[in-house]
Order: sequence, then structure tokens, then C-alpha cells
Amino acid sequence: MADDRRFLGPPRLTPLAAILTAAGGEADGDRERIFEGVAPLDSATPSQVSYCEGRAYKDALVQTAAGLVLVAPDLAEFVPASSIAVICRDTALAFGRVAALFHPAPTPSGQIHPSAVIHPDAIIGAGTEIGASAVIGAGAEIGRNCRIGPLVLIGEKVVLGDDCVIHSHCSVTHAVLGRGVVLHPGARIGQEGFGFNTTADGRFVTAPQLGSVRLGDAVEVGANSCVDRGALGETVLGAGSRIDNLVQIGHNVRTGRGCVLVSQVGVSGSTTLGDFVMAGGQAGLTGHLKIGSKVRIGAQAGVMNDVPPGLEVLGSPAAPKKEAIRAMLVLKRLGSDSRPAARQKPE
Amino acid sequence: MADDRRFLGPPRLTPLAAILTAAGGEADGDRERIFEGVAPLDSATPSQVSYCEGRAYKDALVQTAAGLVLVAPDLAEFVPASSIAVICRDTALAFGRVAALFHPAPTPSGQIHPSAVIHPDAIIGAGTEIGASAVIGAGAEIGRNCRIGPLVLIGEKVVLGDDCVIHSHCSVTHAVLGRGVVLHPGARIGQEGFGFNTTADGRFVTAPQLGSVRLGDAVEVGANSCVDRGALGETVLGAGSRIDNLVQIGHNVRTGRGCVLVSQVGVSGSTTLGDFVMAGGQAGLTGHLKIGSKVRIGAQAGVMNDVPPGLEVLGSPAAPKKEAIRAMLVLKRLGSDSRPAARQKPE
Amino acid sequence: MADDRRFLGPPRLTPLAAILTAAGGEADGDRERIFEGVAPLDSATPSQVSYCEGRAYKDALVQTAAGLVLVAPDLAEFVPASSIAVICRDTALAFGRVAALFHPAPTPSGQIHPSAVIHPDAIIGAGTEIGASAVIGAGAEIGRNCRIGPLVLIGEKVVLGDDCVIHSHCSVTHAVLGRGVVLHPGARIGQEGFGFNTTADGRFVTAPQLGSVRLGDAVEVGANSCVDRGALGETVLGAGSRIDNLVQIGHNVRTGRGCVLVSQVGVSGSTTLGDFVMAGGQAGLTGHLKIGSKVRIGAQAGVMNDVPPGLEVLGSPAAPKKEAIRAMLVLKRLGSDSRPAARQKPE
Repeated sequence: MADDRRFLGPPRLTPLAAILTAAGGEADGDRERIFEGVAPLDSATPSQVSYCEGRAYKDALVQTAAGLVLVAPDLAEFVPASSIAVICRDTALAFGRVAALFHPAPTPSGQIHPSAVIHPDAIIGAGTEIGASAVIGAGAEIGRNCRIGPLVLIGEKVVLGDDCVIHSHCSVTHAVLGRGVVLHPGARIGQEGFGFNTTADGRFVTAPQLGSVRLGDAVEVGANSCVDRGALGETVLGAGSRIDNLVQIGHNVRTGRGCVLVSQVGVSGSTTLGDFVMAGGQAGLTGHLKIGSKVRIGAQAGVMNDVPPGLEVLGSPAAPKKEAIRAMLVLKRLGSDSRPAARQKPE
Repeated sequence: MADDRRFLGPPRLTPLAAILTAAGGEADGDRERIFEGVAPLDSATPSQVSYCEGRAYKDALVQTAAGLVLVAPDLAEFVPASSIAVICRDTALAFGRVAALFHPAPTPSGQIHPSAVIHPDAIIGAGTEIGASAVIGAGAEIGRNCRIGPLVLIGEKVVLGDDCVIHSHCSVTHAVLGRGVVLHPGARIGQEGFGFNTTADGRFVTAPQLGSVRLGDAVEVGANSCVDRGALGETVLGAGSRIDNLVQIGHNVRTGRGCVLVSQVGVSGSTTLGDFVMAGGQAGLTGHLKIGSKVRIGAQAGVMNDVPPGLEVLGSPAAPKKEAIRAMLVLKRLGSDSRPAARQKPE
Repeated sequence: MADDRRFLGPPRLTPLAAILTAAGGEADGDRERIFEGVAPLDSATPSQVSYCEGRAYKDALVQTAAGLVLVAPDLAEFVPASSIAVICRDTALAFGRVAALFHPAPTPSGQIHPSAVIHPDAIIGAGTEIGASAVIGAGAEIGRNCRIGPLVLIGEKVVLGDDCVIHSHCSVTHAVLGRGVVLHPGARIGQEGFGFNTTADGRFVTAPQLGSVRLGDAVEVGANSCVDRGALGETVLGAGSRIDNLVQIGHNVRTGRGCVLVSQVGVSGSTTLGDFVMAGGQAGLTGHLKIGSKVRIGAQAGVMNDVPPGLEVLGSPAAPKKEAIRAMLVLKRLGSDSRPAARQKPE
């Protein structure tokens, strides 16, 4: 944690009363008592706040020196007498709110670094910060109170809503972003997709990549992830969707609201996702599929067919969870059988 | 489509005659009639051209308001009477050519942005455009009519043929590129590969990474993909090969002409591919393999052995298509059996 | 090899005596004889040194024109009479040392490019080189003799030990790096991880990402790989660990010393690895796992459970090697059976 302090700077001192309000919980104790920060259970001091992520961390909870711990009801009995226990229905959510009291998100400085290259026809909203050697193209329209990091490219005519955060080394071209969009370092938004046709004599000719990208409000795209522009029409990530690092979104993919794609997922061109679809790490989806709302796709799954709403699928090729698990169990049994493999052939 | 217009600018007005020539098709109608752009079937207007990707889009075809539709022979009967039907053998290829009439590829401006850092010993061909804060190293030789985007690094002594397009944030070092090579944003060409040896006392010592990269004419490399320099000798992508986003090409890999590697494929060091090899998304190939020409590798396949020319392989570990599908069907049956899993053990 | 010469520049002329010392081997011959470089077996000339990687390269060995070949004892008999055979226990390691005689690693120039943007409060060690348009934030502390490439971001308060090499387009924020760390182009170190909680009404709220990254001495991270900062506390890569390209390391992952993660591996949040763990390409590990020291994880494996020290696991879901191979063999047999699939159902 010593290193973290280096980067965070001093926490804002916060009284118990404010912590309880943020956490949405109650506790006995001096409501004026001041806390000085947050820390994991095993390193927190009596002046710090911690939380218990779940039963797996019970041992750390029993031994913590934290002055206050956010816990689920069923773990409250394990909070040591030296700590104030604050019971929360969702400890992780509550802890996030409490942590933000001590370490509020940085606000844009409103300054434009002199080394940034901003086209005179670009429009920059009030309060927006632009970092060193960022490049802003002609006709770009950037909202208010955005943070554009160093070495970012915002291409011609790109639109950013208010309160966007574009971290270093991102490229954003042919794209319209809503409010509060966050792009992590190196994200690639709006480049040409992978489309070509083959001539009669076997040469590849690039198919026209004329479309754009639309990112809804509060979308987040992870470091070094890629969202290609539509071939014709748009590639769309619905409001609130969260994309982890190193994810590939092909041209003309469209997601609904609140989709969650974990690291290294790949979604091929023209596949559509409903609302609140979740895909585990390294899952892959072929093109032109329809994935219903609230579908859950397991890590490393290979989805080759449409999936109706609400279904959970696993495996490669992906199958409904129950089927996939049964097949895995059978396979595991075939593998673990103590008899020589030569005799396991079914007859 | 409103957003696309923002980025594309006004289409060039194009008469029917020119469209028919580009599409290689015939149709009745006023050959002087002017069209104003391209659009998908469901949003095209009577002044726009569209095309039908295949039978799956028959409903959209029947209802389109497009003034002209490129279609395969077997779908011509579904073109509404209000549209001119132009029958093509390859509608996608024809549509690409027609779209390029309305929206020709951007041409290099020939301007060098004053913020670019160009070593005085670099050679820049006539007509080449270099974007803001690009960095060009000593001894680099860049051909004519190239487009080098903002924030690109072209390293020392790198060679680019004519008509190359290097998009923003790419790094190109220790590499010789042919004519018309396209690198999408964030592509990494020519960095050190992953090679090291272990000393008797367990330390890793980097193996010499002294080689280079050669990209043939018209090679394309996708956003954030990586092509490592050879350890000794070259890493080669053959002419016309197309690499999608987030693909990894290890040191001393060599591909033939026209290979196609879809997003997130990984090819380990020293593996060689013949001509026109295709690998689906997220497929992986271990090192030192020989993959014959026209081999097709399924998405997410794991290739651990040489593959003879022309074979199609699937699965992880990869097997010939027929075997792999049969095994998947058997596994699927084991998983979907209605009896309790406990009784499915083969006896 | 012609291209390589372009990039390497002239090799240092080196006498046999120095080669034998570096290789740790003995041979007859004029110890003053000068060699002029290294090359693969099939292109080396009588004035060059080569080596034989293994029995698979026996044919190339028999035909080589190299003046000197490093070989394992069991291959010495195949070295042609025209070559000096130097017998080594580890030819690859020996060759690396010999190659470094001819082509020593580049040393930092000690120059700071005038286009670099360096905050006046940053501390730059003696001998450190900083490339064009690099950006160094306030309070950063960079050691001696580092090489910081063009277009790199070193964020506020970041610490780099001596002798680090940070290639172009890297971003390093919220991170403390040891001595001799190497980051390849486009590596992302210290950005926010993928953490959020869901409110009662279904919105996602970012969980605090307040931690940092610590990279031990001599850690290497590949091109476009990502190492997220801790949510609370640190994400750690232990000394000497080697991470290939396009790898994802989630927040609060901790590895021991000397771990090796091949390209496109993904390690989810809070998973810990012991010392000398190896993971093959495209393997994935879910979160909160404990992987023991010297565990070996196969390419494309999907690890969903803790793994005890020393075990080798394969497959997705991953299983101990013996089990996994047996299951693969059974499955292969089911797939390759010549009878119709319909009759293979176990009864």
C-alpha cells in the first residue's frame, strides 16, 4: 500500500457520519470520529476503512485491525470487537462509494497543453483538459469537462459528449460518443473493419468501410481494445456497456444496454447482442448472430449460433450450460478412468 | 446513416452507366440517371444504391426503397418493381466497386505536419503525407504517395514502398514494407520477439533478436496486431495477406501469398504457412509447424502439428474437419442425453 | 539476411578465442582467426558463426557453409569438415552469448529529444535517453541509463529503476518498476482494471481502482500487453518474469519470480502465481485462483480452479495432463471411428 499512497495523494479526512451515509448502513459509534482512508483487510489500520469481499476472506476479517469494516449480514459476527461493523446488502458497492469519499475521481484541469495539436476548426467544450501531444482533427466536437490524455488522436468530425475520459494513446475516428464515455489507454475506435472480396483471379479487394461507431452514454472500453467502424451503417455499443482490455468488436456489431465483455473476447462482424449480455474472458462469437438479452456466455466459449434471451452457454462449440457441463463431466470421467485408455472405447 | 454522412462528406453524383460498368452488370433504365450514394437495404432511398448480401436478407430486399439493387441471379425475383435490379455474380465485390465511385479512397495530401519529427537523413517520397507528431528515424526510406498518420513511429532505416497507409499510433521498426501496405492503428511491426534461454542457475537470458520483418505488397495488418522481428533472418507476411486486429505473429513466422488471419489469432515462432491459408478468429498455432497452402483452420482451433495442403482442421487440439465434427457430435450426444450423467459412463 | 544487415549495422569482428570463451566450449583452430558475424545454418558463410537448434535441423547442419557451428554433443558428428565444431551443453544459450559479441545491445545515447515534454518536477537519471514526443509527468523518477522511446507516456510519480528500456508508444502510470525492466511497444501498465458493481436499479458503478503496479527487476512485458493497476493494493509481476505480446494481467494479480506467459494469455483479477509458472499461448485463468510454483499450463487451457505446485494442466476446462490427454485420446477415437456417428453412442 505504500506505493499506492505515492499515487493517490493524501485522502480526504472523513467522519463516520459521512461514511454511514455513503454506505447506506448503520452502526454505533462517535459520528464525528475521523477516518483517514481505505485499505484491504490485512493491511488496514484502526484509522482506516475496509470491507470483506465474501466468506473466502473470513480469516482476514477475523484478524483485521481496520477501524471500520463493511460486511454482509452473515459475516457480521466475525468482525473483531476493535472494529466498527457496518452491515451492507452490497458491501462492494458500498465500499466503492465510501472509497470515493476519501479519493474522489480526478476532475479535468481545463488546461490545454501547449504541445497539443488542435485544428482551428475543432470545437472544445468549456472545462475540458487536453494532454501533451494530443492531436484533435478538423471539425471535431468535444464536450465539456472531458479529459483527453497525452498522445491521443481524436479524428476529423468525431463527436464526444460531456464528461468523457479518453486516456493516453487512444485513437478515435469516425465515431460519435455519448456522455461520460471512458476509453482506457490504447483503445482503437473507428478504424476500418476486416472486409474484402476476392476477384475471379484470386486477389483480395477491400470492401468499402464507410460506416461509423456510436458509443452510448457511460460506455467504457478497455486498454488496447478495438471497435471497428461499420462497413455501411454503424457499429454500436449500447449505453452503460463495459468492455475489458484487448477485446475485438467487428464492424456492424450492435450491443444493447449494459453488456459486459471480459478481456480478450472477440465478436465478429454484424453480430447483435441484446441488453445485459455477459461474455467471459476469451469467448468468441462468429458473425451475423443474434444473441438475446441477458444471455450469459462462459469464458473461452465459442458461439456459432443464435442464442435465445436469458440462456447461459458454455464450451466450444457453445452449448446450453446443462448440456455443456454434462458433456464435460462425461469427458472428464473418460479421462480419469483408471483402466487403460485402449479399453475405454464405448461399445 | 446520418452519422456516416458526417464522416464521409458528400458522395460524388454518379450516373447509372458508370454504376453498371463498375458492377459488371446490365439493366434497363435511363443510363444518365444520377444516383447519390450507397446505403443498406433497410435505409436506402430511391436515389441510392444498395445490395443484397444473401438469402438471409430476403425480407429486407423485398421491402427496400433503394433505387438500384445489386443482386445474385437467384434473388433477382425479390427486387421490388420500384428498384432497378442489377444481377451480379459476386454482389459484394460489385458493390465495393460501386461504393468506391461515390466515396473514393482518400488520397494523400502530400503535406508534412510541422509537428512531425523527421530525421534529416530520412528520405520521403513525393506526394507522401505525414501527420502530426509522427516520428521518422534516421535513414528511413518512405515511398511516394504514402499516408503516415499522426503519432506514428517509423524507425531507423525502415523501408516503405509507394502507396502505403500507416494509420495513427503504429510503430514500424526493423522492417521492409512493399507497395500498398496498410497498417491499422496501433499495429506493432518489428519489435523483439519472445526468445530467451535459461542459465544453469535458472535466470533467463534474452536470445539475440537480430532479424527483421518483410511485408509483401498489399499486405494489411489490423489494429493493435503484432508482428515480431526475426530472431535471425526474417519474419515474412506474403503479398496480399490480410491480418485482422489483435493478431500475434511470432518471430520468424513466414506466410505465403494471400493468407487470411482473423482477429486474435496467434502464430508462434518459426511456423510457416503456404499460400492462401485461412485461420478463423482466436485460432492458435504452436511453433515450428509447416502449414500447407490453402489449409483452412477453424475459429478457436489449436494447431499442434503440421497440416498438409488443402486440409480443413477444427477443434483444440485441431483435427481434420470430418473427425472433429464427428467427435463434437458424439460429445454433444453424451451431454444432451436425458438420462442422469452418472449412467452415461461407457461400459 | 540482407535486410538484417540493413538494421544491424556492421558486426564487431571477433576472434575465435573470444567466441570460445563466450560459448564456454573448446575447439581446435587458430585462436586468432577472425569471424564476421552470425547467421542461420542455411545462409551462413565461412566467415560466420551458426548453431544447430536440434536434431530437426540435421540436414541443414550437414550442408552448412558456416565457418563455426555450436552444436550439442550428439550432433557433433554431423558438422561438416569445413566447419569448426564447438560442442556446448546449451547451444541456444551459448549462441546468444556469441551473437552478443558481434552485435552488442544498443546503449542509451543519454540524449533527450527536444520535442519530449518533460515536467520540470520529474527526475531523470544520468545517461538516460528520451525519444521524440515522449511525455514524462510531474514527480516521475527515472533511473540511470534508461532508454525511453518516442511517443511514450511515463505518468505522474511513476518510478523506473536503472537500465530500463521502454519502447515506443508504451503508457506507464501508477507503477513502480525495478532495474532493467523492458516494456515492448504499446505495452499498457497501470491503467484502471475492470471492476464495477451493480446498483439496485441495474446501473454499473465503477469500483474504486486506487492501487498500483509493481514490476520486479528484469521483468519484460510484450507489445500491446496490459497490466492493470490494483483495485486496492498492488498488481505484481515478480523479478525476471517474461510476458509475451497481447497478454492481459488483471488487477491485483501477483506472480512470483520467473513466470513465463506466452502470447494472448489472460489472467483474471486477484489470481496469484508462484515462482516459475509457465502458461502457453492463449491460456486463460479465472480470478481469485492460487497457482503453485512451477505449474505448467498448456496452450489454450482454461484454468478454473487452484493448481498445486509442480502440476501440469491442459485443456478447457483444464485438467491434470494425464487425464486431459486420456480424454483427448478417447474423444479422438470417437471422432475417427469409421462407423456412422449414429452408432457410436455409448450404451
